[in-house]
Amino acid sequence: MEELNPSLRLLMGPGPSNVSYRVLRAMSTPLLGHLDPQFMAIMDEVCQMLRELFQTQNRMTFPVSGTGSAGLEAALVNLLEPGDTAVVCVHGVFGQRLSEVARRAGASVVNVEAPWGQPIDVQELIETLKKHPQAKLCAIVQAETSTGVLQPLKELGAFMRGGETLLVVDAVTSLGGVPVEVDAWGIDVCYSGTQKCLSVPPGLAPITFSPKALEAVNRRRTKVQSWYLDVTLLQKYWGSERVYHHTAPISMIYALREGLRIIHEEGLEARFARHRQLSERLAQGLAGLGFGFFAQEGHRLPPLTSVYPPREDLVEPLRKKLLSEHGIEVGGGLGAYAGKIWRIGLMGETCQPQNVAILLDALGREL
Amino acid sequence: MEELNPSLRLLMGPGPSNVSYRVLRAMSTPLLGHLDPQFMAIMDEVCQMLRELFQTQNRMTFPVSGTGSAGLEAALVNLLEPGDTAVVCVHGVFGQRLSEVARRAGASVVNVEAPWGQPIDVQELIETLKKHPQAKLCAIVQAETSTGVLQPLKELGAFMRGGETLLVVDAVTSLGGVPVEVDAWGIDVCYSGTQKCLSVPPGLAPITFSPKALEAVNRRRTKVQSWYLDVTLLQKYWGSERVYHHTAPISMIYALREGLRIIHEEGLEARFARHRQLSERLAQGLAGLGFGFFAQEGHRLPPLTSVYPPREDLVEPLRKKLLSEHGIEVGGGLGAYAGKIWRIGLMGETCQPQNVAILLDALGREL
Repeated sequence: MEELNPSLRLLMGPGPSNVSYRVLRAMSTPLLGHLDPQFMAIMDEVCQMLRELFQTQNRMTFPVSGTGSAGLEAALVNLLEPGDTAVVCVHGVFGQRLSEVARRAGASVVNVEAPWGQPIDVQELIETLKKHPQAKLCAIVQAETSTGVLQPLKELGAFMRGGETLLVVDAVTSLGGVPVEVDAWGIDVCYSGTQKCLSVPPGLAPITFSPKALEAVNRRRTKVQSWYLDVTLLQKYWGSERVYHHTAPISMIYALREGLRIIHEEGLEARFARHRQLSERLAQGLAGLGFGFFAQEGHRLPPLTSVYPPREDLVEPLRKKLLSEHGIEVGGGLGAYAGKIWRIGLMGETCQPQNVAILLDALGREL
Repeated sequence: MEELNPSLRLLMGPGPSNVSYRVLRAMSTPLLGHLDPQFMAIMDEVCQMLRELFQTQNRMTFPVSGTGSAGLEAALVNLLEPGDTAVVCVHGVFGQRLSEVARRAGASVVNVEAPWGQPIDVQELIETLKKHPQAKLCAIVQAETSTGVLQPLKELGAFMRGGETLLVVDAVTSLGGVPVEVDAWGIDVCYSGTQKCLSVPPGLAPITFSPKALEAVNRRRTKVQSWYLDVTLLQKYWGSERVYHHTAPISMIYALREGLRIIHEEGLEARFARHRQLSERLAQGLAGLGFGFFAQEGHRLPPLTSVYPPREDLVEPLRKKLLSEHGIEVGGGLGAYAGKIWRIGLMGETCQPQNVAILLDALGREL
């Protein structure tokens, strides 16, 4: 078998995004052991930078040793026990996934739905929450990767603040690309993935638990169904006790540390502005080429633009040609929108003016 | 925050082991997307090399997107449902972990125990299995990382072959260092970790499911409690359908591919002989320095030597000094053996004559 020699790709799909040479270089650093005092200092640095990114003071803020979907599962299985009620917002694949994982955790699930491409109606959601005051949690996707919709959260958080129900937010495609203000918005558990706007390879899921969420975990009548994702055990390793739980993915933590360092050098406001401005530039260019927009205007997610290509018969052939002849990856639609839409990512390192130009140039030549 | 600049370590603990520059270099390769046809070819190559390593024809052989403990959990939660009986062998921390995870999956657990440092008595285990012919599975650790004991499996596999009960084997610290013959020994589910004898950073858990194990999964009355680890969904991504499940940890898969390439260049027999011969050399040197052996003679695990240092008051101070002054990491004891024993790894890349010499020289100077 030959040495690894993949083609270079411009990753403009729904993730992974392009990764900085600095992150790739950090990943190739020789390893420390997972209980080495030097590694523990690195863990603390990563947790502190994650707190700044999530805009939270939550002590229990750390990367789960799995991809974003492991973060989703960690959020739900730590909070839910058989018999609990979970209100879950479904307006795309990741809402469906939240609903499915909540059911597998034994919860009675109340779905609040919106058509794909539209945000959840917050007033309708609040009415549902009023009907289920005993619900253990309300889970909602801030950035639906399947539709490119950005869900407003402030009003929801303000309504839920002070109540018993915990607010769980999926920030997989938003964290590092648009504001995610965990403390200010009253979010109790928020998780993300590394391969989107953080531009770190997939493999870790940053997550944060509020003190209120941890109290709920501590009041459980049953053990967390997943030993691997059990935050009561994980906090003994990521916290001050440093009790061995599982072997941390050292090289991925190195990568995340460097990715976070890059984000903090740029600054959150500048980073959010970059995503906003370049997504507007991309949208203008796409509109000029005859693309239509899938996500409802006013709720479009800067890091991920979902579009109808000008001709439906070209949707999949042109997407494949972009990859094979131009080395550009854009994402296809999921579920009922497979073969109908594209999802174009401008996340983290990928979100650069030259990449917008490269894509628009390639599309101009092909159309 | 400064650029990452950890001290160089000689990793002679219970894992992670040292990683080849070839693997580190592969990890720093720019990323493909997780649905890119080139990445799918890489996935197929990794699965095929894993089959050769596990010595199996099992189609469903792939790396779980988590560390070895995620592999353990994947093995059990896919097979067990509430009400099932699981016979679990406990002769160290990882047998305890199997027992705990089986209980969290709702199983009624029958433990078969042996003192730490000794193997499970296979005749006693077989008698227990005869009393529980309806047991869904029997789980056993081949290489107890907490004790350094190598568990014989052939006789157990021969007894279980043709029965209903599935044989689950933890090969975290054995795969790639000592023979693990999944098909010949009649193992139904076998999992490992990348950071031991494969000398790939922690973060993936190679696993294999026999057709009989997959049939048992397909006969479940309830869904697998973990969506993230559900092999019925994972086989649609790792198999020919290529249905998106979660975003694969691309860079870790690159690392695993290179680690497996190195193993296959060396050849399994040569690799096993290297681990056997150098662990004997290490043991002779340690005996000469006054170390005693913890694991029962005849059942010592070549990749991991567990020892009593010559003076108990030196156990932890000397271990810390080896790290801080010599850059050598050896592992401490777990549970009741914390502060009493050391666990010295000679796994994969770490298992080289010069490393044995470096450790013995440092110990000779310090004692």
